Amino acid sequence: MSRPFYRAAAVAAASLAMLSTPTLHADEGMWLYTNPPLKQLKEKYGFEPTPQWLEHLQKSSVRFNSGGSGSFVSADGLVMTNHHVGADDLQKLSDIKKVDYLKLGFEARTKADELKCPDLILDVLQSIKDVTAEVKAAVTPDMAPADAVKARQQKIEELQKAGTDKAKGVRADVVTLFAGGAYHLYTFKTYTDIRLVFAPEKQAAFFGGDPDNFEFPRFDLDMCFFRVYEDDKPLKCEHHLKWSAAGAKENELTFVSGHPGRTNRQNTVAELEYLRDIGYPSVLSRLARLEVLLGSWVARSEENRKKGEDDLFGIQNSRKARIGGLQGLQDPKLFNRKREEEKKLRAYIETLPAAEKEAGLKAFDAIAVAQKKRAEYLKDTVAFGFNSQAFGTAQTLLRYADEMKKEPKDRLPEFGETRLTSLKRSLLSPVPVEVDYETLKMADSLSQFAIAYGADNELVKRVLAGKSPQERAYELVSGTKVIDLATRTKWFEAKEAPESDPMIALARLVDEPTRALRKKTEAEVDEPKRQASAVLAKARAAMDAGNTYPDATFTLRLSYGPVKGYTENGKQVPAFTTMAGLYERSKQQGNAGPFELPKRWEEKKQSLDLTTPFNFVSTADIIGGNSGSPVVNQAGEVVGLIFDGNIQSLVLDFIYDDTQARAVSVDSRAMVEALRKVYDAAWLADELEGKKK
Amino acid sequence: MSRPFYRAAAVAAASLAMLSTPTLHADEGMWLYTNPPLKQLKEKYGFEPTPQWLEHLQKSSVRFNSGGSGSFVSADGLVMTNHHVGADDLQKLSDIKKVDYLKLGFEARTKADELKCPDLILDVLQSIKDVTAEVKAAVTPDMAPADAVKARQQKIEELQKAGTDKAKGVRADVVTLFAGGAYHLYTFKTYTDIRLVFAPEKQAAFFGGDPDNFEFPRFDLDMCFFRVYEDDKPLKCEHHLKWSAAGAKENELTFVSGHPGRTNRQNTVAELEYLRDIGYPSVLSRLARLEVLLGSWVARSEENRKKGEDDLFGIQNSRKARIGGLQGLQDPKLFNRKREEEKKLRAYIETLPAAEKEAGLKAFDAIAVAQKKRAEYLKDTVAFGFNSQAFGTAQTLLRYADEMKKEPKDRLPEFGETRLTSLKRSLLSPVPVEVDYETLKMADSLSQFAIAYGADNELVKRVLAGKSPQERAYELVSGTKVIDLATRTKWFEAKEAPESDPMIALARLVDEPTRALRKKTEAEVDEPKRQASAVLAKARAAMDAGNTYPDATFTLRLSYGPVKGYTENGKQVPAFTTMAGLYERSKQQGNAGPFELPKRWEEKKQSLDLTTPFNFVSTADIIGGNSGSPVVNQAGEVVGLIFDGNIQSLVLDFIYDDTQARAVSVDSRAMVEALRKVYDAAWLADELEGKKK
Repeated sequence: MSRPFYRAAAVAAASLAMLSTPTLHADEGMWLYTNPPLKQLKEKYGFEPTPQWLEHLQKSSVRFNSGGSGSFVSADGLVMTNHHVGADDLQKLSDIKKVDYLKLGFEARTKADELKCPDLILDVLQSIKDVTAEVKAAVTPDMAPADAVKARQQKIEELQKAGTDKAKGVRADVVTLFAGGAYHLYTFKTYTDIRLVFAPEKQAAFFGGDPDNFEFPRFDLDMCFFRVYEDDKPLKCEHHLKWSAAGAKENELTFVSGHPGRTNRQNTVAELEYLRDIGYPSVLSRLARLEVLLGSWVARSEENRKKGEDDLFGIQNSRKARIGGLQGLQDPKLFNRKREEEKKLRAYIETLPAAEKEAGLKAFDAIAVAQKKRAEYLKDTVAFGFNSQAFGTAQTLLRYADEMKKEPKDRLPEFGETRLTSLKRSLLSPVPVEVDYETLKMADSLSQFAIAYGADNELVKRVLAGKSPQERAYELVSGTKVIDLATRTKWFEAKEAPESDPMIALARLVDEPTRALRKKTEAEVDEPKRQASAVLAKARAAMDAGNTYPDATFTLRLSYGPVKGYTENGKQVPAFTTMAGLYERSKQQGNAGPFELPKRWEEKKQSLDLTTPFNFVSTADIIGGNSGSPVVNQAGEVVGLIFDGNIQSLVLDFIYDDTQARAVSVDSRAMVEALRKVYDAAWLADELEGKKK
Repeated sequence: MSRPFYRAAAVAAASLAMLSTPTLHADEGMWLYTNPPLKQLKEKYGFEPTPQWLEHLQKSSVRFNSGGSGSFVSADGLVMTNHHVGADDLQKLSDIKKVDYLKLGFEARTKADELKCPDLILDVLQSIKDVTAEVKAAVTPDMAPADAVKARQQKIEELQKAGTDKAKGVRADVVTLFAGGAYHLYTFKTYTDIRLVFAPEKQAAFFGGDPDNFEFPRFDLDMCFFRVYEDDKPLKCEHHLKWSAAGAKENELTFVSGHPGRTNRQNTVAELEYLRDIGYPSVLSRLARLEVLLGSWVARSEENRKKGEDDLFGIQNSRKARIGGLQGLQDPKLFNRKREEEKKLRAYIETLPAAEKEAGLKAFDAIAVAQKKRAEYLKDTVAFGFNSQAFGTAQTLLRYADEMKKEPKDRLPEFGETRLTSLKRSLLSPVPVEVDYETLKMADSLSQFAIAYGADNELVKRVLAGKSPQERAYELVSGTKVIDLATRTKWFEAKEAPESDPMIALARLVDEPTRALRKKTEAEVDEPKRQASAVLAKARAAMDAGNTYPDATFTLRLSYGPVKGYTENGKQVPAFTTMAGLYERSKQQGNAGPFELPKRWEEKKQSLDLTTPFNFVSTADIIGGNSGSPVVNQAGEVVGLIFDGNIQSLVLDFIYDDTQARAVSVDSRAMVEALRKVYDAAWLADELEGKKK
């Protein structure tokens, strides 16, 4: 349930029939910084970014490992992102400080007031090295799938270890691109001392709530500011983005630098059919159940709301995104366009030399077979995926104890040597587990587990231990010590997982079936798909002569496109909204529920310039994970902050189009206007605008 | 989605282990008026109701055919029920009058102001005749299931026809009891001129909304008043309930006369297993999807809210009830109690003469086989059940046209001669269909249809006609003329259903598979179960020596039990709440959302006696359909109005217990206090209290 991750971004269903099927469409592309769209930018916009321009934007971009994007926006390590990206940290700090910062907002007038986040980690990409040849050489064609996985994993570990320098906070990750068609070694500077600087009230950041989510026109101040510290001092940033004095104009070319989470554009028809008929319906069914469960629980009391509303928002967000995706997949016109694309690739493969041709055609079949296996294992995958932080912790502790007895090369990948630091950090995070909330979720998981196999199944009976799902969940959650940080730390350090703890005992009970499931999924689904997709990706890249980009993988990408309105149901939707629109929308909806104005906004209305642009749309190719990305102009100055895509952008998961699909941003001018006049935070506006005190 | 029908009512899971398994438990029972619990009442409470007492209560009781209960409460045909039972009519009148009575409430100060409901029908039970022997004689053991169904149906039609006197507004229904163990001919006086008299604001009636639904303590004024007219004059009621001057006291014996919708207490273990592992999970999954779909749509605008909120409430209500039911079924201790009950019945059957014994044991097997078939047909049943009023209308018009060409005896039962009047009335109801709302629901149904069979299935392709579910739904709903009353009336009168209409064409397209599905469900599931359940019911009745009651069937029943608090998590929950509690709960919840007080209640707070009892709980055995039932004391005077069951009552569907399960009522004193002091409706309070002007 990585929240901002699934902020998906499209295609107006009705317009698809008229489209031809070019390899690249208009401003399409989530480009690698190692292969930017120089040709397109020059030809269409007459703009030629220099290597320095690109490097500056790259090194000003920040990845939130909790699932989102951000950027450095001052020389003193100030980081800009979305409120909804920072929500997780606002929640955790609220728990610790017993003040609801998520709801009420937060402002640190001095650096001493800035609050350190318990487990937030930010990464800044420093360098990229192509290691495709080395990784591929580790796997030979005669290897069994399980051996291939292991061999590749060992090579990757080796490369990562060589690139990592813990002392300097440097981490190296091998990222998989083009579905295994390429491997790049990304080196990051990793920051772990991140402090909260400013957040508006949730009502301002998420005005319109779930009803207006993925909609446009919008009026959201979805921003949040953190500061990176190093050696207990604000980070001095060589690379940070300047603020634009004028903001963006309609039709002006803009750029987005961020971390799109996942797209499925290179999926074969077999994979899309699976998603359409099985995968998405299954996820949506789970999301709907959880939305109803959490929604009704959260509404019961103010205390419940605090505990569950962030998860609830994440679920609602995923739900809207998936519904949009399903609608696209269920549109025969869109689906046929994907079929045509595949035909074109098949036709190209037919022209290749015999061995490549055979491999290419076999790859389609291998993927189709793997999808059948995926469908076969879906029930087990869902049933054993207990929605409980306490269970997850218990399982990790148990496996850690078991795996650390093995040689590093024989361990599950997440217990590889280079992963232990982040494993420890996340496992020993001080975030408390709320017993009642955890019980609610665990009871639901146990109930679903019983439904999956029937309540009379032997394993179900052992898991429930003669109790109802509710009673059993309460017994497990209130009885486990894994949610106690001191105990958890002790067991982790001692590499032990005592089965006298009820949750660890449960993790042991399901350890064999869950390991077996993981093993066969890896061997029969993931690895065959990885190999086959790499073959197809190679063919596709050859067909496209390199002028292409890989599917999104939560790695840094560059997108571009002009600020631009669109037409909907015959009406023109302008590119910009204004602050006046916020007050109108609130009035229309009776100033109630998610449309209720924060008090400060009511009080300060008179002092605001209501013509200030508030949110705007552009054609940039983004998707979930891009939340919090900076929008910059050709001078590299901040003109906006990505926070959403419109409803028509929800099929960007599979296919790009710019007829109606739009990325939605907060305008830089609204941020400064609100900071100065609503929040009396001129100091922060000054820092953004580079005005020295 | 018959809303108040699933107001389910229980057993504290934790307490079940300690219970023995008597045939009847404490104040258990939804008793037939022909077999009231005289023995229990006398023994436990020393109360002996006379035949006149029973007849008066029976004839004062009213059935809302839209799914709820009510009662005559004045000599001038005034009918009391719940706001949520009347909600459907409030919505329809709001549509017609373009004023939101559902939200704002309604008051007719004079009879001339009373608003006639477009399609509300009320039934009052006049007489009951046992026709078991006649109905059973129509079916001989050598008949094939389909023939048995037809023969029984013909006999039932014949009895109903003989008992019906249209001119006098008298209708006769053969009701099936004990799962086919008994058939009774119920004769009703049917009223069709029903006018709205008074309703409070929804915020007062449904204070606490979905979060507090099925919870206690509660503070809801869930009441609504209608008036029955005959020959354009208020009905003169010989039988109507007097108002109690003093209300009820803690531990006082009370009675509930109403129409519990459905219980499954006589289900075999095979049936309960089906519900636990398949049936309830399937319904809950559908409800969660619809709750999310409608919930997010309703929140988008005030207009949407008006169109969808009543349905949404119905879905939330069903969801809570089903979750409660599932929790009970998934509790091994409760389930084992049901297994013990079945063992006891089996043991009794073993003692019967050979033929009866064989039939009894075979019946268990027949039910188990039928449940397997039910599971097999579930997917089709759900997939073809399009959630669209327009589709339903088109299908009825089409089948009406087809069936009316046949002999009456060969028709589908709903087109039998005695059913045509009510068929016509419901089909030609003037309630408008909202195109956008209907499109939303139909698009969801079409999407689910495509998921059920895969988008590449031939019938799916024909149903979608090359379009996305959204486009296709819009085309169907905006193109069909069946939602136009004049056209619908013309086609109905002419017994035609032109397939040039897109929705009728769709109904034709799926007519063969849906008829086939219905036929095999009837032959392989419903009829075998009916026969087998009748055998078991007979054995059970013999075992219980007649001292029992049939499962609920939305027919009139008498329940009883004292007003009584309970203990929850070690704390005592008092039987009564007060008006002061309303203001406290609202304050706790920030006076927001479903906890926002209506303005009038804020203004009139000072004039109210805040110690007035507001809601109370009793041990009476009720379930969904009982909503709106009067609660009377031993003198037959109104002391309350049933509107809910607490969360612990949600397994009453399967088993009765009085440890924590409680029926929740509005106190009669709160109704009068609010009418006089909040609503300035002394005229109505006077009419209730029998004070002549």
